[in-house]
Amino acid sequence: MTSLSTLGWTLKDWQTAHQTPQGYAYLTELIEQINQATDCAWISRLSLTQLQTDWQALQERREQGEALPLFGVPFAVKDNIDVAGWITTAACPAFAYLAEKDASVVQHLKQAGALLIGKTNLDQFATGLVGTRSPYGAVPNSFNPEYISGGSSSGSASVTARGLVPFALGTDTAGSGRVPAGFNNIVGLKPTRGWFSIQGVVPACRSLDCVSVFALTTADALQVAQILGQKQDLEDAYSRQPPAATPTRMPERPKFAIPAQLEFFADPFAEEAFAKARAELSRLVDWVEIDFSPFTELAELLYQGPWVAERTHAIGELLQQAPEQIESTVRSIVTKGSDYSAIDCFAAEYRRQELARMIQHTLSQVDALVVPTSPRIRTQAEMQQEPVLYNSQFGTYTNFTNLADLSALALPAPFRADGLPAGITLIANAWHDFALADFGQRWQAHLALPLGATGQAFQPAAEDVSTLAPGAVRVAVVG
Amino acid sequence: MTSLSTLGWTLKDWQTAHQTPQGYAYLTELIEQINQATDCAWISRLSLTQLQTDWQALQERREQGEALPLFGVPFAVKDNIDVAGWITTAACPAFAYLAEKDASVVQHLKQAGALLIGKTNLDQFATGLVGTRSPYGAVPNSFNPEYISGGSSSGSASVTARGLVPFALGTDTAGSGRVPAGFNNIVGLKPTRGWFSIQGVVPACRSLDCVSVFALTTADALQVAQILGQKQDLEDAYSRQPPAATPTRMPERPKFAIPAQLEFFADPFAEEAFAKARAELSRLVDWVEIDFSPFTELAELLYQGPWVAERTHAIGELLQQAPEQIESTVRSIVTKGSDYSAIDCFAAEYRRQELARMIQHTLSQVDALVVPTSPRIRTQAEMQQEPVLYNSQFGTYTNFTNLADLSALALPAPFRADGLPAGITLIANAWHDFALADFGQRWQAHLALPLGATGQAFQPAAEDVSTLAPGAVRVAVVG
Repeated sequence: MTSLSTLGWTLKDWQTAHQTPQGYAYLTELIEQINQATDCAWISRLSLTQLQTDWQALQERREQGEALPLFGVPFAVKDNIDVAGWITTAACPAFAYLAEKDASVVQHLKQAGALLIGKTNLDQFATGLVGTRSPYGAVPNSFNPEYISGGSSSGSASVTARGLVPFALGTDTAGSGRVPAGFNNIVGLKPTRGWFSIQGVVPACRSLDCVSVFALTTADALQVAQILGQKQDLEDAYSRQPPAATPTRMPERPKFAIPAQLEFFADPFAEEAFAKARAELSRLVDWVEIDFSPFTELAELLYQGPWVAERTHAIGELLQQAPEQIESTVRSIVTKGSDYSAIDCFAAEYRRQELARMIQHTLSQVDALVVPTSPRIRTQAEMQQEPVLYNSQFGTYTNFTNLADLSALALPAPFRADGLPAGITLIANAWHDFALADFGQRWQAHLALPLGATGQAFQPAAEDVSTLAPGAVRVAVVG
Repeated sequence: MTSLSTLGWTLKDWQTAHQTPQGYAYLTELIEQINQATDCAWISRLSLTQLQTDWQALQERREQGEALPLFGVPFAVKDNIDVAGWITTAACPAFAYLAEKDASVVQHLKQAGALLIGKTNLDQFATGLVGTRSPYGAVPNSFNPEYISGGSSSGSASVTARGLVPFALGTDTAGSGRVPAGFNNIVGLKPTRGWFSIQGVVPACRSLDCVSVFALTTADALQVAQILGQKQDLEDAYSRQPPAATPTRMPERPKFAIPAQLEFFADPFAEEAFAKARAELSRLVDWVEIDFSPFTELAELLYQGPWVAERTHAIGELLQQAPEQIESTVRSIVTKGSDYSAIDCFAAEYRRQELARMIQHTLSQVDALVVPTSPRIRTQAEMQQEPVLYNSQFGTYTNFTNLADLSALALPAPFRADGLPAGITLIANAWHDFALADFGQRWQAHLALPLGATGQAFQPAAEDVSTLAPGAVRVAVVG
């Protein structure tokens, strides 16, 4: 795949290419390659024939003078997000249906001229943080196939990390848009809940679900986020609009919180990598240590509390009629939702509210909290031994986020000594998405790590990429 | 009781009296009277001895230069609100406990110099809209004792309507702070959820509960509200702060919504009274008719959905250990909370969110919705026939309010032809409390009805009451 001309292209690379007549040739090269490859990151892919049709429609819109900021930019979406005319599987063939209508987020991207090239694999029903719970295959880590990709948005993270698309959509209820970003050296933007519509997305925990964005750079993730969040969706009852004033920048030298208690589940590489990240961050920020126990308690509530009943509700019919069609680990988790009463539900909701309030108060005193995106990584083989326990460990630094109504941004960070990625995540109160992205851009420029798993060099935002000739391959910088 | 010097005094009347040395004499007269009377509106009352102690402490604070805007102003609180050193019963002797600490709202009022003179009767555990569900007696309507007072804040409404106190605190989950205001010709301010702390209040549905204010005038209710809502309470996880900009005024000629479908449950007096109110309102506002079905569906969700499990949770221990100590109708309602599962809970929550979004969208297009406070009233005897059905009818225009996160203000309105009161309620989106109160003041000035059940004349805000001599009784205007 390294021969692909568009390998690791960012939004700007694609936008530049489409200012020349060669744009379409790049797209056909890409579609041919993804259709030839055996790649379990994809569940379905755009055909060359469909590309021709889509391209023609796009060209007509451009000729009619439509503003198309993402004209011809290829993207992928997780296969729990509806695209009109495509099958939505949620990684469960027995659940699959033909979507008649685009999800709101897909509609926004198509309106902006972006071109969907495929739908991606996931932990079934977005239940998992691992990337192995799918009948379409376990998505390998893009750096070392013995390791997991992370999930549940495994496929979207993989095709972004490998530079096939400049961005892809995931979903993030418990960390599904961040853990795989951390394991694959890319950016995962988990927006404030309700900023992007979830209309047309298969629910996991409908009261908590978010659509998320993977990209190679923070700048690209932010540009996509602005398109996705442009207006409130009246069809999505959980859609919200930002308040009048939201912070867009961080101070020149921000104050970051760091957990006083850090857990790596005995992974020395992860611990060392986070220490490196912390040392690099120290050049840019001031620190304050915080008590992490309210975050930990809230994280545990998500899977050990009644919110799992939302998952049970979402697939109730299938669970009753054909439970054997559900992946066994997913089934064992989701059936537990029936054990909880409404009284349990309110008791947990009261505690959630108390913990959320404490957390929001803590975060109101800093510019962001920084955590490892995931405390450690595992091999595919290890996951077969402990599919539930290890999975739950991955959510140590993510599970609490939507329960406490926070914004989050998973970022690349210095690599582990064994060559695997080890991301960090910035977390702040609701509607701090822009401020987090502001710092994310500084951080990526500071580290200048290669993009995803492509080996392509990070280009600072100011770079003029218009001189990049088609077919040119940038000099790879080894991280 | 008509010989009481302070009958129907407003805040300003009390404030004026306390600028003279006679203030204490008025208080002793009041305390003597309430302690002599047989009056099931009270569950406990201030003793003369305690008055002396409290008065002395207040005087010392005044001498030390403390700002005490409510210096010596008597008030009452519903007996599900804690006051340090007083028993909290929630109208259930088996549940009663000695409160060690003031509820936050009581603390705010005491800080402002207000003087608690008693704790008031209620539908047990604030479960009811009727005023009859209490072992301390059924509170009679202040205009005709054959009729109900409304509830659950029956006692607080009664002592306010009868002019014993200028204001009293109630609580309002489903309408408990509005229905009794409507049945007794007083103002009931149901704030935006979270504006006033619920710390120290016995939970009914903790995720929905509000403390509410009864007063004879909107101006007084608003003054008390400003004291209660002065700051966010970090001890109450559900406490919220108003956003930076909240509407404080209504346009000169506001646009009001009115339900296209109006239900009075075959009470021609109620229907006629609302028509009169509408005719009077037409002089001040423009109208738009709206589809009321989302409001009705949401109202029904409250008691026919899993939120009743919050009530079950709140008194779970008593329900297990001594169910026979719970009032029979209340018990039959509250035990139903155990029937719901967590899955029911989330299914109802999704529908709640959808309906709330529709309602909020509708209300964003008008200045307020106006409804009858309650569709009709009943006699005590009727309530014994149908204690549950008739009670649920009272909530037709109130039950949806907290589920949809709205603000509301119950106001006096033209009387029924049978001489009973028939209030109206203004409803708007969250944080429109001040705008509603702005119109409420105009409306009361427009109607100039006598205050509560006191027969005392309404005095426009601009009136200088400083010339009112102690013992003077204003000319009564019969409504």
